[in-house]
Amino acid sequence: MLNIGIIGAGRIGKVHTQSIANYVRTAKVTAIADPFITDETIEWAKGLGIAKITKNYLDIINDPEIELVLICSSSDTHSQISLEAIAADKHVFCEKPIDLDVGRIQAVLDALAAKPELKYTVGFNRRFDHNFRAIRNAVESGAIGKVELVKVTSRDPAPPSAEYAARSGGIFMDMTIHDFDMVRYLSGEEVESVYVQPAVLVDPAIGEAGDFDSAVITMKLKSGALAVIDNSRRCAYGYDQRAEVFGSLGAAASRNDAASTVEIATDGGVLAEKPLYFFLERYMQAFATEVTEFIESVVNDTPVPVDAEAGLAAVLIAIAATESAKTGVVVKVG
Amino acid sequence: MLNIGIIGAGRIGKVHTQSIANYVRTAKVTAIADPFITDETIEWAKGLGIAKITKNYLDIINDPEIELVLICSSSDTHSQISLEAIAADKHVFCEKPIDLDVGRIQAVLDALAAKPELKYTVGFNRRFDHNFRAIRNAVESGAIGKVELVKVTSRDPAPPSAEYAARSGGIFMDMTIHDFDMVRYLSGEEVESVYVQPAVLVDPAIGEAGDFDSAVITMKLKSGALAVIDNSRRCAYGYDQRAEVFGSLGAAASRNDAASTVEIATDGGVLAEKPLYFFLERYMQAFATEVTEFIESVVNDTPVPVDAEAGLAAVLIAIAATESAKTGVVVKVG
Amino acid sequence: MLNIGIIGAGRIGKVHTQSIANYVRTAKVTAIADPFITDETIEWAKGLGIAKITKNYLDIINDPEIELVLICSSSDTHSQISLEAIAADKHVFCEKPIDLDVGRIQAVLDALAAKPELKYTVGFNRRFDHNFRAIRNAVESGAIGKVELVKVTSRDPAPPSAEYAARSGGIFMDMTIHDFDMVRYLSGEEVESVYVQPAVLVDPAIGEAGDFDSAVITMKLKSGALAVIDNSRRCAYGYDQRAEVFGSLGAAASRNDAASTVEIATDGGVLAEKPLYFFLERYMQAFATEVTEFIESVVNDTPVPVDAEAGLAAVLIAIAATESAKTGVVVKVG
Amino acid sequence: MLNIGIIGAGRIGKVHTQSIANYVRTAKVTAIADPFITDETIEWAKGLGIAKITKNYLDIINDPEIELVLICSSSDTHSQISLEAIAADKHVFCEKPIDLDVGRIQAVLDALAAKPELKYTVGFNRRFDHNFRAIRNAVESGAIGKVELVKVTSRDPAPPSAEYAARSGGIFMDMTIHDFDMVRYLSGEEVESVYVQPAVLVDPAIGEAGDFDSAVITMKLKSGALAVIDNSRRCAYGYDQRAEVFGSLGAAASRNDAASTVEIATDGGVLAEKPLYFFLERYMQAFATEVTEFIESVVNDTPVPVDAEAGLAAVLIAIAATESAKTGVVVKVG
Repeated sequence: MLNIGIIGAGRIGKVHTQSIANYVRTAKVTAIADPFITDETIEWAKGLGIAKITKNYLDIINDPEIELVLICSSSDTHSQISLEAIAADKHVFCEKPIDLDVGRIQAVLDALAAKPELKYTVGFNRRFDHNFRAIRNAVESGAIGKVELVKVTSRDPAPPSAEYAARSGGIFMDMTIHDFDMVRYLSGEEVESVYVQPAVLVDPAIGEAGDFDSAVITMKLKSGALAVIDNSRRCAYGYDQRAEVFGSLGAAASRNDAASTVEIATDGGVLAEKPLYFFLERYMQAFATEVTEFIESVVNDTPVPVDAEAGLAAVLIAIAATESAKTGVVVKVG
Repeated sequence: MLNIGIIGAGRIGKVHTQSIANYVRTAKVTAIADPFITDETIEWAKGLGIAKITKNYLDIINDPEIELVLICSSSDTHSQISLEAIAADKHVFCEKPIDLDVGRIQAVLDALAAKPELKYTVGFNRRFDHNFRAIRNAVESGAIGKVELVKVTSRDPAPPSAEYAARSGGIFMDMTIHDFDMVRYLSGEEVESVYVQPAVLVDPAIGEAGDFDSAVITMKLKSGALAVIDNSRRCAYGYDQRAEVFGSLGAAASRNDAASTVEIATDGGVLAEKPLYFFLERYMQAFATEVTEFIESVVNDTPVPVDAEAGLAAVLIAIAATESAKTGVVVKVG
Repeated sequence: MLNIGIIGAGRIGKVHTQSIANYVRTAKVTAIADPFITDETIEWAKGLGIAKITKNYLDIINDPEIELVLICSSSDTHSQISLEAIAADKHVFCEKPIDLDVGRIQAVLDALAAKPELKYTVGFNRRFDHNFRAIRNAVESGAIGKVELVKVTSRDPAPPSAEYAARSGGIFMDMTIHDFDMVRYLSGEEVESVYVQPAVLVDPAIGEAGDFDSAVITMKLKSGALAVIDNSRRCAYGYDQRAEVFGSLGAAASRNDAASTVEIATDGGVLAEKPLYFFLERYMQAFATEVTEFIESVVNDTPVPVDAEAGLAAVLIAIAATESAKTGVVVKVG
Repeated sequence: MLNIGIIGAGRIGKVHTQSIANYVRTAKVTAIADPFITDETIEWAKGLGIAKITKNYLDIINDPEIELVLICSSSDTHSQISLEAIAADKHVFCEKPIDLDVGRIQAVLDALAAKPELKYTVGFNRRFDHNFRAIRNAVESGAIGKVELVKVTSRDPAPPSAEYAARSGGIFMDMTIHDFDMVRYLSGEEVESVYVQPAVLVDPAIGEAGDFDSAVITMKLKSGALAVIDNSRRCAYGYDQRAEVFGSLGAAASRNDAASTVEIATDGGVLAEKPLYFFLERYMQAFATEVTEFIESVVNDTPVPVDAEAGLAAVLIAIAATESAKTGVVVKVG
């Protein structure tokens, strides 16, 4: 039985803890840490049989019984805690991004290079979504031939506050980073250059904070294939998460998931349900699969489903995109 | 914390046990009984922390710590164990059917009438399916007006053996019984009469055993509305589970669930995924919701989601259908 | 150039005349007859270059220049005019039904048997619909294996007057007759017996006139396969015309046609267009194909797409259905 | 009765001639001209009752009986013949593009400005497509709020020869020009700047000829809204023609048209039909509507559905796109 410590008991930390309780038989969460842990969360953790509940994450890092750490704390702590966990010989599941700074990500990669026995993964949950996996499978099967174009539509239901936008590293680092990873995942290719046409169409305060809330991002991949992402921070009908890969023999495309398949036909038209509201609804199963498969890779000593290099690659594209959005010219990645 | 005993550790018994472990925080399975329990199952039960593992279900009936019993044993034992559990003052979740014999079902209803403090439900899992619930919600909302026609398509991926067919009480009692309940659930009405056009199209051995493997079943409801079910014991593309309610203002209809929404377009056409294979895949979430909601009704002392009368009503329709299939004439229900 | 005479200048007579003008290069309409022809229709006919415009259809029957007659007059005149046209050695396109009386239909078949050089067809326009043809093609290709079940949904947007219902021969002869032909067309089989569960749910006046406005019709085909039709005389969302054939290897099913494929996603859901309103909209292209293919069969002396026997067969099923609706028992066809 | 002359008896000239014969009652084609007219085409024209069949288009320009001219000749003759037809006081329907050269287009606009009584239109047939019109209607109705993003997918089934590509003015002038017009039509806005990420992925010979066969084109509109087009000259599953407009209150999106709605479900999946093969199939009805509405605007002296300025605007965007593809930077339009 693998012992797991959770660092960060916010929304996503709880999602992972619950997934492990529900789906994983070879590991259990034995400790959880959060500097702002609430009484309610403490109660919830006790209900799950978690023995160690602490405000200090070092209680987890320093616990020799714990072999695997999930880093679900605020983004600016990810790389530091990663380094500490690696130093303490623990396997690490780190929520994205590893860091906004390439040097700090590189430090994590270097630390990992020195300890090849440790497993490390980044939380690109969408790779575990049933729809995107089915597209990737179609690409890998050769059914659509050589990849020529990857399209990703990614729209959030509601914009963050301008304060959050400013702190987050900007839309490309905070939101599009998942889509950049999707382009790499679906195509199986590296991104060579990126051009961004950004806009502030949703909330002027986001623009005043120096960020954007809408964008069309064009990419050229190493093979010469193209990719395009369209983003909006606000989508009236919910969380719009679609992808399409077009190739020499055809295309594979996904639609959104909804709560039911029911259509109601009346004099006013034929009404179907909206997409699921946001990421907790849409990717609920993906979050569970993500954690489960990482734990399996640790238990069975097999390759991790998403490696640390993927975390770096997406950040490098986000950096290039941020620069393109500001300068209005194409930017090479890396 | 409510203590639960599981009687019958077959496929469905395990599904329910797992659902309780995953989703229910107010109850736990403390005992499981099966006369043919395997070593593997014993190991699995231990892994879930189940304290009492026995071959004799009376160890559960007689356990004063256990307040709720799930009857997942073979169909011919349901009514007998129900009566014993009620006598022992336990709440009961009973898999369908309560019994093939109306007198025995009535005995259970009589026993329940004498102990109104006990909760009793029948496992009509489809009532908890997201698609059928959305249809029912549309009907209840008034969006489609007065119900005029209920249509249910229900096709299993592969036929049972002829031996099973013979033992099961026949297709109408074994398979269509879920669809009969669906007609009642979706319409909110009682069935008045039934006419069956049966056929043996899939496996002649099923016909030789005195049963059918295909049927179209027409019903008249109390309000005068109509209903129709089409059944097949074999469906090449998986488990086909659709419903439609047509009313004076429109219709609400569901499609099947598939593993993904992906469509692959090539020179050969546009290919989407088949429906999910069978009931464990299609109704996985429904099984969890079913058990969860029943336990909630016990814990909160609220009405059960499906009552024992629903169990009787579906059997009465199945009996009428069986007679109609044999005589070729319309048969009144009840 | 084949000369055509149109008998009956009502809605469907005009549709056919226009189709010939638009799509047929090997034939032209040279005469049109209608006892109640309006000035507006006369103007329209002149605009199409029709030379002979008359109130007396015998002016067409007796015109030696005319080789082909389209009978679009009121239903009760179809068989009589058919006989006169055949006697005058003309090819005949006759709108459905040939007659409500089997003896009179037989008289037409007998007259045709004596003149094998004449082509005769019945206006079962749905056989020329792109969707139903695609289902038939799937069945014929063997893609879905041996036919086990044919399902037809057929709902009109608005009910006829009770007076019309009474005069029309009843719902099964007037409306369902098309669906009976669809069952024969899609399965490629004859109907052996029929059971009807009728209802009056839309307009009580239709019931008082001795007819029904809703029905579920179950059929057994000669091979043992099953068929089921559901009908309503009123459908709030337009003309609902769907079919499905289920077989040993799979199923082929069609959806309704709409004016566009556009979906509008908002906070209220995802709204698509209703089905096309009624038969003129839904079957516009089918009407043109129907006439075109019949004229081709005359010009090229090839088999007609729908023969007179199909006209008789559908009427025989309608008669059986009418009897079943009244008696409540299964009725053998023919 | 308006007399029409057709200049150019190639594929599209024939389509328009046939549409007028089929659908227009207030006008007729009395003359057709083509320097390379074949015997077969002469026969076809005679069959339609066209009186004047000539190799010299000036026979049409100089015919005082002809009031309206359709210019369906090769692209490099459009502006010259337009000027001659305007000088001869004729209404003009001109296939796209008016010219590749802005000065020559301006000359046509100047000539028209001097004769405001003449009607002039450009053949942007997609504006008359049922799907794109339904999207435009949704935008105009306010249902999706303020436009934020227009997306157009446009893929041809098979690439042209490299020779054609070179002569045609390049992919943006030859193919994307329709999509540029779509962006203007769907948004109701002007395009301010354009950035192109082009590629040669389909046929290296097209690249050697100095053209591209694949592209992602990003645009900024005057209001600040964004637009994106993705193009390919080769699409294995046919003609892919989709659009989506995303706004503050939602989105309106269209799918492709197929020959039928039929889905065939088997063990291999659920197979639907491919999109219609190419523009003659997909836009057949749009071509008819296009000509019909223009003739109506002439007959009724109402505004033309697409004016000459639209022809200029699309060419200006195509010029900017061509430059962006070559320079790799954003280019202002006009």
